Amino acid sequence: MKLVQASCVGFVDETFSKAPVPGGGGVAALAGALGTALGGMVCNLTTGKKKYAQYEEDIQRIMNEAEALKNRLLELIDEDAQNFFPLSKAYGLPKNTEEEKKIKEETLQKCLKVAIQGPVDIMKVCHDAIKLQEELVDKGSMLAISDVGCGVLLLKGAMQSGWLNVVVNLNSITDEKYVADLRAELVPLMDEGCRICDEVYEKVLAKLG
Amino acid sequence: MKLVQASCVGFVDETFSKAPVPGGGGVAALAGALGTALGGMVCNLTTGKKKYAQYEEDIQRIMNEAEALKNRLLELIDEDAQNFFPLSKAYGLPKNTEEEKKIKEETLQKCLKVAIQGPVDIMKVCHDAIKLQEELVDKGSMLAISDVGCGVLLLKGAMQSGWLNVVVNLNSITDEKYVADLRAELVPLMDEGCRICDEVYEKVLAKLG
Repeated sequence: MKLVQASCVGFVDETFSKAPVPGGGGVAALAGALGTALGGMVCNLTTGKKKYAQYEEDIQRIMNEAEALKNRLLELIDEDAQNFFPLSKAYGLPKNTEEEKKIKEETLQKCLKVAIQGPVDIMKVCHDAIKLQEELVDKGSMLAISDVGCGVLLLKGAMQSGWLNVVVNLNSITDEKYVADLRAELVPLMDEGCRICDEVYEKVLAKLG
Repeated sequence: MKLVQASCVGFVDETFSKAPVPGGGGVAALAGALGTALGGMVCNLTTGKKKYAQYEEDIQRIMNEAEALKNRLLELIDEDAQNFFPLSKAYGLPKNTEEEKKIKEETLQKCLKVAIQGPVDIMKVCHDAIKLQEELVDKGSMLAISDVGCGVLLLKGAMQSGWLNVVVNLNSITDEKYVADLRAELVPLMDEGCRICDEVYEKVLAKLG
């Protein structure tokens, strides 16, 4: 069964156990999906309302984009688990001889680049979802303004959790150019994402008065 | 069916919809349960390991406490939904006559104090779970250190989401003493919780190198 099909209580209990998945990556993807879904709910509570008619086109676009990002994050729960599997096997390879050591190191390096892809994608999708919430704080129904706030809080936590799971793999990758390129791509993405989340959260608190 | 028994994908999709629950409160409780469960996983990956034998008693205690807090947060998903139901009905009461206005306002005031209880409890339980992660960052297995980080990131988001849902209700409550007392209790709790989360996250980043 796919992890995403598990009940909420089942998923949480499986996380609690010593089973390798779901771990930080899968939990981050689910938290990101929940945050994105709150944005979708805000759209659903805004669309068709006279008071927000001027934003109707934007709300429809944001809702469609949120739907796609939410689905991608749900997909990433199981994708991340699958990507992690070869790495968890590679760690168990023998290293008694020089030949075995060489094979193990080469296999680990390949598997690390596979395992890192899930958290990288989680970060990118959460970043996109954060930009949607940034629009919603101004265009969404005031009746659901606290949900925009909860959305960015969870998306920020999910994106930063993705980053921790990137870093934990990145530190073992020996391909220096790959590591430098990925850092150069992701650090500004995370900085911008966190900044937007903090701004949206403050804006929500101010609107709540 | 209880919300907590829904599949992850079902819960997320129900959040996305215009249905009143799950909203920010239920999502916060689930995110808190996920963060707490990551702490439980760290305990499960630490217990019995020679390297951490000096912390074995602490790890057992933390695991038991995390189990109870995780269960309480899962419970709060449905409890919060039930607590919200009377308020959502009260908003629909008529207010055509002075008598109806008076009844509606009195009913709303009662229902607001019921609806606020879920988010208040979510904040308190997340705060307790954050204190467990604070211990785990030093006593848990280094192999799972990133999961301690993901744990505090989600718990911080969950606790702050709880706060937004407290504030949204608090602003409509006219009982000034009740409002002042609750603020006096929760603001320091949140400040301390956020501070610990930030410290643990920085510690995790430093340990990851």
